[in-house]
Amino acid sequence: MSLRVLGAKAAASLDKELMSTQGFSLDQLMELAGLSVAQAVYKTYPPKSYKKVLILSGPGNNGGDGLVAARHLKLMGYHPSVFYFIKSAKFEKLEIQLHSFGIPLYLSTDSQDVVGDIKRLVMSHDSIIDALFGFSFRPPLRDPYNQVIKGLIASGKPVISVDMPTGWDVDEGPRAAAIPQDEVLEPSVLVSLTAPKPASVYFKGKYHYLGGRFISEAIAQKYNFDVPQYPDLDQVVRL
Amino acid sequence: MSLRVLGAKAAASLDKELMSTQGFSLDQLMELAGLSVAQAVYKTYPPKSYKKVLILSGPGNNGGDGLVAARHLKLMGYHPSVFYFIKSAKFEKLEIQLHSFGIPLYLSTDSQDVVGDIKRLVMSHDSIIDALFGFSFRPPLRDPYNQVIKGLIASGKPVISVDMPTGWDVDEGPRAAAIPQDEVLEPSVLVSLTAPKPASVYFKGKYHYLGGRFISEAIAQKYNFDVPQYPDLDQVVRL
Repeated sequence: MSLRVLGAKAAASLDKELMSTQGFSLDQLMELAGLSVAQAVYKTYPPKSYKKVLILSGPGNNGGDGLVAARHLKLMGYHPSVFYFIKSAKFEKLEIQLHSFGIPLYLSTDSQDVVGDIKRLVMSHDSIIDALFGFSFRPPLRDPYNQVIKGLIASGKPVISVDMPTGWDVDEGPRAAAIPQDEVLEPSVLVSLTAPKPASVYFKGKYHYLGGRFISEAIAQKYNFDVPQYPDLDQVVRL
Repeated sequence: MSLRVLGAKAAASLDKELMSTQGFSLDQLMELAGLSVAQAVYKTYPPKSYKKVLILSGPGNNGGDGLVAARHLKLMGYHPSVFYFIKSAKFEKLEIQLHSFGIPLYLSTDSQDVVGDIKRLVMSHDSIIDALFGFSFRPPLRDPYNQVIKGLIASGKPVISVDMPTGWDVDEGPRAAAIPQDEVLEPSVLVSLTAPKPASVYFKGKYHYLGGRFISEAIAQKYNFDVPQYPDLDQVVRL
């Protein structure tokens, strides 16, 4: 299934509109987006064989989706752990929820060696959720994120990227001149949220899902993208 | 499957704790509760045969769950309509969402004849979601709610009750002395949220679901109830 894509400007504008004229709160959208991500993981790497999931959460909304996904994964029978790059107190309540669910939460602010700590965590987990940066990121990655991505690539572990593989350019994907070739992450799963971004055409992995089942037909028409038929009760649809 | 029940006092205390020490927002909990209700409807009365769903939303949190369920039902292929007894501006944003999804919303404040209007709406729909009152209600029902329930009973339409059939006593169910016998609603579906309430033992319908897949093991233990195994990605489990 090939869908029309949504550029970075339009995606930012859509997010803003969802939370103003459309009446959604960030909590609501993030809850459903995070649930989508957890469902995509469950469908691709079921808990029986991939019990331990590491979620790498960046400082923005993409990271928040990861925090929500971690909680749902726990409820689905996984043993998730989270490494969280904190920026603000915006998602403090999501952190509290993780504590309540007994989910190990490693904070960048507590780490003396972010790159080394993440490398060790990656090696002791079965799959990795990349919720570091989303569609508003512009390459190249700065330190320590570039080192984290290099470590992730070297590990050979299955990677599920949220909305956009970290380090990619939203339009040119991994081909952007600003991206060093040894920092090109190639995830096996991509979970596009609300609509695929332009760079998703460069995704070479086997599993491309769309998540974020909260878009009305009116708003999809206004922003000129498609809402495909989700199967039954699923919060994701495979593209 | 028979689960331990949760009394009204404990349920109120649990709700309070979820939104304080456990870090949840009302938006998050209501989103997941409403999604549960929509999934229970889908499993019992699929959209192919029961396209038109009427949601009767009361003035409290139970009503809010109904507003959220309406939106998810639309996304699942139903044609939902909502009759909403407004109390406060608390759920104004949920109303805006319904408008955005093109879901007809009838407000009690706009109606000259609430009982008659609801009767007509009931007759033109295939199933009815009873999201009027929940576990904190104490019988008897006052006017016009008692008339609404009588009309609903007379219609013979399939009724899905959210958490507690409207008019029931949370402990004694339909047996409480304060309930006139011609006001005893017997729904075909009951969606208990977080844990069944004591009166759920009097439920005689065929489909009893548990929803609200957001309870950690620690909190279930503290409140002395069970979290059963939800099947795969479902937000409801049949009891």
